[in-house]
Amino acid sequence: MLNFDIQFPTRIHFGRGKIEELAREVLTYGKKVLLVYGGGSIKRSGLYEQLLNIFKESGITPIELPGVQSNPRISSVRQGVKLCREYEVELVLAVGGGSTIDCAKIIAAGTGYEGDAWDFFTRRARITQALPLGCILTLAATGSEMNGNAVISNEETEEKLGTGSPLLIPRFSILDPEYSFSVPPEQTAAGTVDIMSHVFEQYFSPTPGTFIQDRLAEAMLKTCIHYGPIALAKPDNYEARANLMWTGSLALNGLLGAGKRTDWATHDIEHEISAIYDVTHGLGLAILTPYWMYYVLDEKTAPRLADYARYVWGIEGSEDLAVARVGIEKTTEFFRSLHLAGSLKEIGVEAERLEEMAAKATAWGALGSFKKLEYLDVLTILQNAYKGNTAFSA
Amino acid sequence: MLNFDIQFPTRIHFGRGKIEELAREVLTYGKKVLLVYGGGSIKRSGLYEQLLNIFKESGITPIELPGVQSNPRISSVRQGVKLCREYEVELVLAVGGGSTIDCAKIIAAGTGYEGDAWDFFTRRARITQALPLGCILTLAATGSEMNGNAVISNEETEEKLGTGSPLLIPRFSILDPEYSFSVPPEQTAAGTVDIMSHVFEQYFSPTPGTFIQDRLAEAMLKTCIHYGPIALAKPDNYEARANLMWTGSLALNGLLGAGKRTDWATHDIEHEISAIYDVTHGLGLAILTPYWMYYVLDEKTAPRLADYARYVWGIEGSEDLAVARVGIEKTTEFFRSLHLAGSLKEIGVEAERLEEMAAKATAWGALGSFKKLEYLDVLTILQNAYKGNTAFSA
Repeated sequence: MLNFDIQFPTRIHFGRGKIEELAREVLTYGKKVLLVYGGGSIKRSGLYEQLLNIFKESGITPIELPGVQSNPRISSVRQGVKLCREYEVELVLAVGGGSTIDCAKIIAAGTGYEGDAWDFFTRRARITQALPLGCILTLAATGSEMNGNAVISNEETEEKLGTGSPLLIPRFSILDPEYSFSVPPEQTAAGTVDIMSHVFEQYFSPTPGTFIQDRLAEAMLKTCIHYGPIALAKPDNYEARANLMWTGSLALNGLLGAGKRTDWATHDIEHEISAIYDVTHGLGLAILTPYWMYYVLDEKTAPRLADYARYVWGIEGSEDLAVARVGIEKTTEFFRSLHLAGSLKEIGVEAERLEEMAAKATAWGALGSFKKLEYLDVLTILQNAYKGNTAFSA
Repeated sequence: MLNFDIQFPTRIHFGRGKIEELAREVLTYGKKVLLVYGGGSIKRSGLYEQLLNIFKESGITPIELPGVQSNPRISSVRQGVKLCREYEVELVLAVGGGSTIDCAKIIAAGTGYEGDAWDFFTRRARITQALPLGCILTLAATGSEMNGNAVISNEETEEKLGTGSPLLIPRFSILDPEYSFSVPPEQTAAGTVDIMSHVFEQYFSPTPGTFIQDRLAEAMLKTCIHYGPIALAKPDNYEARANLMWTGSLALNGLLGAGKRTDWATHDIEHEISAIYDVTHGLGLAILTPYWMYYVLDEKTAPRLADYARYVWGIEGSEDLAVARVGIEKTTEFFRSLHLAGSLKEIGVEAERLEEMAAKATAWGALGSFKKLEYLDVLTILQNAYKGNTAFSA
């Protein structure tokens, strides 16, 4: 186990009706709020109107930034920054899933920064201050509601990059599983895979001696595998939505990665895809993950991949490589059972752009830590995932 | 799953050499520190001298409260409160295990309270303010380093009572597993059981639909079962000490109990024993736990106790009651393998005081939530634990 420093400062209000905490939380920071949200779903669900009523009753003035898209754009961030400055906003309130929250984070950081917020992603500037941020989560997936990370796309440069700072950790997050009842099936499936992928990126690590972190990771994977299909079949099953929502937050709040080197190669590769094609992040991960697993499997990585197969999928057997392979097959089957596509070709990715993606993904160096991936490794994974033709996915 | 509100504000500095964070942390709060510690172990280990050097170099003035005992006394608290007032202390710094930290917490709360600190335990007064608190942990057990709870004994009234407040949550805790290398075998064993008992008290619950919490609990139990014997056999095994230390913090920081009713009957019963006999808390728990499990096992509780047997101990079988019984046997065997006593008689408890303990334990009402325990239930558990004669412990 490696040394680490960690803190989980977000106040979590979890459960049915927890919106009742909103006014008190907001008023801790001020009365002028930037309300960041996506499309019309919060209007259809009635949440939007509920928020306006709460604001009215509590003397809170919302300034609205609607229309934040999935794979949120730097242009939305710039709009938000402008509004925050113009109206002297005191709190940024994100209502939605990870895209909305990530956008809100960079608005919070960008408001007091004199340059352009894209500088935080190109490493031209560091985040040294941010407006306080609150979240109302409507989709279990990214865990952004409990961490200081954000991923933003730049539509002009076709880049999708991440940044992070403890200053971006939400002060509070309201997690009402009922808000996720209306999440459509593909998003429910993609969200489940996104959570699992966050666990994988931290579980598959070269650091030895991290027994507690690894068993916690397996607990979260089992939860996704148990409840993903239930949430898909019964969208208003509270138990399933609640377990997925809380697991989503725990999977990326720092707990699983504390004390170990983490990987993130699959995420880095996926970002190159969704930077160009605007693919749902979790769908891209669902396609790539089994091909990444299959590619990195060797004598050295087999024990950990076999642990995964044994402890998460209950695969028996003493030969690590063989057990690991069954675990990868199970993973593939599971993603397919969620009705997610199995190849990049199926979702419209073009073969002639794979080299460009592999080059961009490795532009700053090799990816991953569980197994280091250079340009050719990444290209091979992309090509395999494009064709969808490995033995285990037949 | 029930609604919950949670936050984990303690800054954790985990690992070898993390004492390097101390001066910076302390100076955030001030220069006058009450240094709370126990016996001579921090002097023998060299930690005490190291602390004095750090304080000297950083211009920090320590005021010392040594001699805090296990099952810390309200008299130590009163001494500490007096020192804090006299020297206008700005931060209370606990160096030790749970007893020292609990004592430091109530000193922190008592300093600004005009009455006597025992009032917090008799419900005469609520904690409304507290000095900031920092911890340097030397023993993996209570989890006090990451929560707002404290248990204090009153030697005059032979009471051992608990209280808690978010105001008592340590601002920072330094967790260096090397500090626990010198923990003697019985304390290592008792600490491991204490961690497991904290997990049990939250795992065995009547609340349905808490899959993620339950799998996380099993992860922690497996960690204790894996590393307890290693730490006992090789006291300076860093991996074992690190996994136990971090698990100890996570087991009682609120994570496992969030969203469910918790039990705590075994703890409540044990407190009556250690209030009179000054028994090591974890030893008392090791004796009581199997008898509690055995007593509460019935048709209704069998599924959860069988889950425990299956997922933690790998017991196979389809009949819940039978599987559960094997799980309880395994638990008993495990505690014995740590060389802990198996009956209350062995540790000097007197048969004629069991009724008094049962009465005191249930004075404020029935115990537990997994299965409600009235006076006669508690007495039977105590009598069984006294004799140590149930079939499974033969």
